[in-house]
Amino acid sequence: LSQGADAERVAGALAGLGLWTRRLVGAHGVALAIREHSAAVDISRIESLPGVDQVFRAEPRCERLAAQAGRPVEISGAVFGGGDPVLLAGPCSAESKAQVREAAAVVAARGARFLRGGAYKPRTSPYAFRGHGRQALTWLRDAADAEGLGVVTEVLSEGDVQAVAEVADLVQIGSRNMQNYALLAAVGRTGRPALLKRGAGATTDAWLLAGEHILAAGAEAVIFCERGIRSFDSRTRNLLDLGAVALLKHVHRQPVVVDPSHAVGRRDLIQPLSCAAIAAGADGLLLEVHPRPCEAMSDGPQALPPHMWEDLVDALGLGLVKV
Amino acid sequence: LSQGADAERVAGALAGLGLWTRRLVGAHGVALAIREHSAAVDISRIESLPGVDQVFRAEPRCERLAAQAGRPVEISGAVFGGGDPVLLAGPCSAESKAQVREAAAVVAARGARFLRGGAYKPRTSPYAFRGHGRQALTWLRDAADAEGLGVVTEVLSEGDVQAVAEVADLVQIGSRNMQNYALLAAVGRTGRPALLKRGAGATTDAWLLAGEHILAAGAEAVIFCERGIRSFDSRTRNLLDLGAVALLKHVHRQPVVVDPSHAVGRRDLIQPLSCAAIAAGADGLLLEVHPRPCEAMSDGPQALPPHMWEDLVDALGLGLVKV
Amino acid sequence: LSQGADAERVAGALAGLGLWTRRLVGAHGVALAIREHSAAVDISRIESLPGVDQVFRAEPRCERLAAQAGRPVEISGAVFGGGDPVLLAGPCSAESKAQVREAAAVVAARGARFLRGGAYKPRTSPYAFRGHGRQALTWLRDAADAEGLGVVTEVLSEGDVQAVAEVADLVQIGSRNMQNYALLAAVGRTGRPALLKRGAGATTDAWLLAGEHILAAGAEAVIFCERGIRSFDSRTRNLLDLGAVALLKHVHRQPVVVDPSHAVGRRDLIQPLSCAAIAAGADGLLLEVHPRPCEAMSDGPQALPPHMWEDLVDALGLGLVKV
Amino acid sequence: LSQGADAERVAGALAGLGLWTRRLVGAHGVALAIREHSAAVDISRIESLPGVDQVFRAEPRCERLAAQAGRPVEISGAVFGGGDPVLLAGPCSAESKAQVREAAAVVAARGARFLRGGAYKPRTSPYAFRGHGRQALTWLRDAADAEGLGVVTEVLSEGDVQAVAEVADLVQIGSRNMQNYALLAAVGRTGRPALLKRGAGATTDAWLLAGEHILAAGAEAVIFCERGIRSFDSRTRNLLDLGAVALLKHVHRQPVVVDPSHAVGRRDLIQPLSCAAIAAGADGLLLEVHPRPCEAMSDGPQALPPHMWEDLVDALGLGLVKV
Repeated sequence: LSQGADAERVAGALAGLGLWTRRLVGAHGVALAIREHSAAVDISRIESLPGVDQVFRAEPRCERLAAQAGRPVEISGAVFGGGDPVLLAGPCSAESKAQVREAAAVVAARGARFLRGGAYKPRTSPYAFRGHGRQALTWLRDAADAEGLGVVTEVLSEGDVQAVAEVADLVQIGSRNMQNYALLAAVGRTGRPALLKRGAGATTDAWLLAGEHILAAGAEAVIFCERGIRSFDSRTRNLLDLGAVALLKHVHRQPVVVDPSHAVGRRDLIQPLSCAAIAAGADGLLLEVHPRPCEAMSDGPQALPPHMWEDLVDALGLGLVKV
Repeated sequence: LSQGADAERVAGALAGLGLWTRRLVGAHGVALAIREHSAAVDISRIESLPGVDQVFRAEPRCERLAAQAGRPVEISGAVFGGGDPVLLAGPCSAESKAQVREAAAVVAARGARFLRGGAYKPRTSPYAFRGHGRQALTWLRDAADAEGLGVVTEVLSEGDVQAVAEVADLVQIGSRNMQNYALLAAVGRTGRPALLKRGAGATTDAWLLAGEHILAAGAEAVIFCERGIRSFDSRTRNLLDLGAVALLKHVHRQPVVVDPSHAVGRRDLIQPLSCAAIAAGADGLLLEVHPRPCEAMSDGPQALPPHMWEDLVDALGLGLVKV
Repeated sequence: LSQGADAERVAGALAGLGLWTRRLVGAHGVALAIREHSAAVDISRIESLPGVDQVFRAEPRCERLAAQAGRPVEISGAVFGGGDPVLLAGPCSAESKAQVREAAAVVAARGARFLRGGAYKPRTSPYAFRGHGRQALTWLRDAADAEGLGVVTEVLSEGDVQAVAEVADLVQIGSRNMQNYALLAAVGRTGRPALLKRGAGATTDAWLLAGEHILAAGAEAVIFCERGIRSFDSRTRNLLDLGAVALLKHVHRQPVVVDPSHAVGRRDLIQPLSCAAIAAGADGLLLEVHPRPCEAMSDGPQALPPHMWEDLVDALGLGLVKV
Repeated sequence: LSQGADAERVAGALAGLGLWTRRLVGAHGVALAIREHSAAVDISRIESLPGVDQVFRAEPRCERLAAQAGRPVEISGAVFGGGDPVLLAGPCSAESKAQVREAAAVVAARGARFLRGGAYKPRTSPYAFRGHGRQALTWLRDAADAEGLGVVTEVLSEGDVQAVAEVADLVQIGSRNMQNYALLAAVGRTGRPALLKRGAGATTDAWLLAGEHILAAGAEAVIFCERGIRSFDSRTRNLLDLGAVALLKHVHRQPVVVDPSHAVGRRDLIQPLSCAAIAAGADGLLLEVHPRPCEAMSDGPQALPPHMWEDLVDALGLGLVKV
C-alpha cells in the first residue's frame, strides 16, 4: 500500500472485488496479502484502487494451459467446450468382443460420442483381473467404428503408450498415474489428446501442472477429468469436488469432464450428480455403462444398466441448460 | 449365504443391484459384507436372490428423521421439498437497521423467501466483531415483515435460544455447533423448525444424527444445510460436497439446502455451484447478499452484490428444472 | 526486496533459514512470500539479510496465549511443561461409585496425577447413554480425593459449567465443542484451568484461537489436547497428528497433552503412540483405563485394562526421556 | 451369534478384547460386525467366546507380505527391524560430484548407513530442475563407496529401472508413483529391495497392496516409508501419520521407515518428530541433509544443515530406546 493509505478502506475495496485479504505490517508500511480462495480479478482493477502502491503476484507457470484456455477442443468430431455436453460411456473393462460391441450399441443409441472401456486395468491388488490388453484395444476400436464413436481408453505403462495411442482418439491417464511424469511425457510425445484424471489426493494446482507436463511434451490437447477425491465419509466411494470443476471451467477456462461413476460409486446418485456436474460447468461426462452389470468383471455396482443410462440421458436433455 | 451357494454368482447379482460386497469366510460357510458406499436397495430384493440365506442389517437409529422423510416442510409459507427451490438470502451480519432494510428489499425483489443475517456471530478470533445481538434480531424481524419474508438467523448460546426462537421462523445452528448437543436440545425444545449446518469435519451419519437430536427434543422440522467441508485444496474456502446433498435428498429423503457462499468463499463460483446444488437435489439455497460488500463487517469477499444476486436468480430461473 | 536485489540469492538465504518462499513480481520490484509451513525464525534474522528491504508479517492475534507461552502450568500439584509427563487416566464414563473408586485406585497406583471420567457424555446418537450427571461428579471428586488425584471431567452445557467447575481441577471442553464459543466463554469466566480438545476438523490456528477465547474470558490456563483428526483411512479411529503437537510445543510453546485412546481407538497401538507423543513433545497423556473394559458403558474397546495400563507406564518410564 | 445368545454380553466380551462392533439384525438371528479400527485379535479367541457361532473374515490378500512379516531385512549390512534404527540421509538432489561427496562424509560421520540423493526428480512443474540422471547415479555410488554407505535413490521411469537397480542397494519408489503399477512391477522384476513411499492420498490398505505388487513381481524385500499425507492444515507441509507406522510395525509387522523431512517440511520440527517416529516403531529414518541448504537446488528449507543433523543423531542416541 501507499504510505498513509487507509488499510481498512483498501481491504474493503478489495472485498468489494471478491478478494480475501490478510493485513501484514512491516517496518515502514502495511501490505495486504490476498488469500488463495479469492475470486479471480483482473490485476488492473486492483492497481487502480486508491491507496494501492504496487501489486505483486506469482508468475504464471502454465504457458501451454494458458494457450489452451477458453478454446473449444474438437476430438473425432465431438467438441469439448462447445456448448453441448459430450458423453463418454461404456464398461469399466473391455471383457469380450461381444460385450464391447453390445455396450457400444447401447451408448451410441443415446448420443454418446466416445466409447470408454479398459484394456489395461490398474488394480489395487496384484491378483485382480488386469484387463485383456492389446486384444481388447482391437475390440474397442472395431466396436467404436461400427457405431461412429471415438475411443477413450487408459494406458498404464510407458511400454504400451504407442499401442494405445494408435487406437485411442483420447488417451486416458488414470487417477493413480496423475503424477507419473514419465507416463505423462510419453503420452504427450505421441501428440494425441489426453484425458487426465485427477489424483485422489491431488490439489487443483498439481492437477493443472500435470496437464502442463503433458502439453509441454507435445500433446495436442488435455481434457481434465474430476473423479472424486479422498475424504472422511464412507457413504460415497470418493468425494465429488464440483468446486474444482467450476474452478477449472470458469476461472482457468480449461476443458473439463466429470466421472460421477467413480466419484460416488453409487448407482442411485449418478443421475443427480451428472446433472449437477453439467450445471457446475463440465463439458462432458465419463460414465460406466454395462449391458449387464451383474456380469461385470470390475466395478459392476457402479455401472449403469441400459435403462438407467437412458433415463440419465433423458434427464440431461430435459432438465438442464448449461450456464 | 446358503450352504453350497455360489458366492461369486451371488456377488454378481448383488452388483447388479448396485451393491459392493466383500467376501468373508467362516468355518462353515461364506458371507458377503455389503459396503457402505453401495446403492440403497430394498431388503426384500436381496432376500429373494437365490443363494441368500439371511440378510443382516443395522437397526435404524433415526426414527424422527424417518418420520420426516419425503414430506415437504412448509415454513412461513415457503415449502422445502415442494418443487421450487427456496432462496434464503441476506448479509452475513445484521450491521444496522438501514443495512438490513436495504438487504431485505434487494433479496425480496427477486424472489427470496427468507431474510438471513447474523445477530450473533461465531468468530474464530475472540477479538472480532460478534454481532449486534438482540437489537439486530429486531432489525431482522422488522425488515422481513416489511418485505413479507421469513427470518433465518443463528443462535450460539443456550441463553439466547428463547430470544432467537421468538423472532426467527427458522433457527439456524451453525457449523461449529453441529455437535453442541446442549444447544441442539435447547433449540429442539422450543418446537421451532431448525436449520442445521453440517460441521466442517462431520460425516453424513453424524450430521443426520445431530438432526435426530433436534427432532427428539421437540423441533417441528429440521432442514439440513451443506456448507462445505474441510479438504486439502486452498483454492476454495471449503469443499462443497454435493454427493452428501444428493445422498440426503435422494436416499434419506430429507429437506436439504446448500450454502454455496461459505462452501467456496469465491464470488466468481457461486452461480455455477448454486445451479449445481439445485441439480443435485437441494431444496433451496442460503446465500450471502450484501447491498455493498465493500462495507461488510464480515465475509464481504463472498457476499454477492445486488447485480450478481439478480444474475444468479435469472440463471436459476432460466437454466434449471429440478431433477 | 531492495531494488536490484538478486531474488534467487535471497530465496537461497531464506531457505538456509528454513523458509519456503514463492516469488512474486510487481510493477517496480520483486517480493518473496513466505509460506505457512516454514520454520519459525526470528524476524531480525530476515531483516538483516542483504537484499531484504522490508519484512511484512501478520500481527499477533493471541496475546493471552503469548503470555502463557513457555511457562510451566501447575494444576493441583502436577506440572505441565515441567519435564515429567503428566498422566491423566480413568474410564470413559463414571458408571458407578464403585467403578470410579476402583479405577482411581488402579491409575493412582502407577503414577497418574489426574482421574478422568465423564459425568456428562456427548453422544452421536440421542438415544445413547449420556452419563450420570451431578451424582457422577461427586463420585469422581470423592475417589480422586481418596487417592490424592486431581479431577478432569468434561462439561457440555453452559448450565452445568458452575457445577463442573466446583468439582474439577481441570475443566474439559470436548472435541465437538471446540468452537462452541458460548461454552468456551462460560468456562473461562469461572477462572478454572481448561483442557481444550482439538476438533476433529479444526486447523491448528483455529484451535489456538479457541484457547485464546477461553483465556480472554478469564481462565487461569489452557492445556491443549490432541485427540486425532478426520482422515480417509479407516484402520484407526481418527488420525493422530503429532506434527500439531510438536508445533504447539516447540513453536508456540503451549502446554499440550495427547489422548491416544481416542486418536487411534485401538488398544493394540496405544502404547507405541503414547511413547511417540511424549517424544514429539507432549506434556502428558490422557488415557482411557477401565477396571474391566468388557463391562464399560462406552468406549470399552479402546480402554486399557489394568495390566496394559501398567505395561504402558513401565514402557514410558524405561524407554523415554523427553527431548 | 448362536441362537439365543445375549448379543450385548457378547459385544461386551469382544470389547474386552479390543473389538468395536455394530449390531446387525437378520430374520432369524443377530450378528455383530467388527469394525475396521478394532485391535488385531487372534481369531480363535473370538471363536471360543460363549454365544459365538461362527466368525467370518476377509481372506488374506497379501501372501508375500505375510511371508515377509516379522523378519528383519538386511540390506548392504544394515538391518531394518533389528533393533537399532537405520539412518538414510543425504541431499534431496544429487547436484554435483563434490556436493554428493561432501554430503556423504557428513552423514557417514554420524552413523548413517545409506546415502540418499535424487538423480531423477519428480517435479510438480515441468519446468523445474529434474535431476542430473545417470551421471548423478555414478556420483552417488562413488561417494557411498568411499564412505562405506549403501545407496537409496528414486526411479521415475520404467526405462531407467535397470540403470538405477545396478547402482542402488535400495530402489526408491516415490509417493507420486505408489500406484504406478507398471513401475512397481518393473522394479520388482529386478529383484532388488525397494523402498516404497506412501502416496499422499493412499490408505494403509492400498499402500500394503502396492508393496505386495512389488514382491509379487520378484523383489527381495519391500521397506515401507511414511512421508506424510494430505490434510487440511497448512502449518506443516503434509501430515505425518505415525498411527500408520505403528499399524504397519506392530500389527502387520512390516519393515517401515519415516521421512520426517517431507512429512512436515519444517526444519524446526524434524528432531522431535524423528524421535517420535522411532518411538512409534519406525525401523529407520529417511532424512534430508545438505552441506549448505542455502545452495540446494530443491527442498533447501527442509534440509538439515550439518550441525542440526548432528544434534538429531545425538538426540536419538541419548533420548530414545525403541519400545
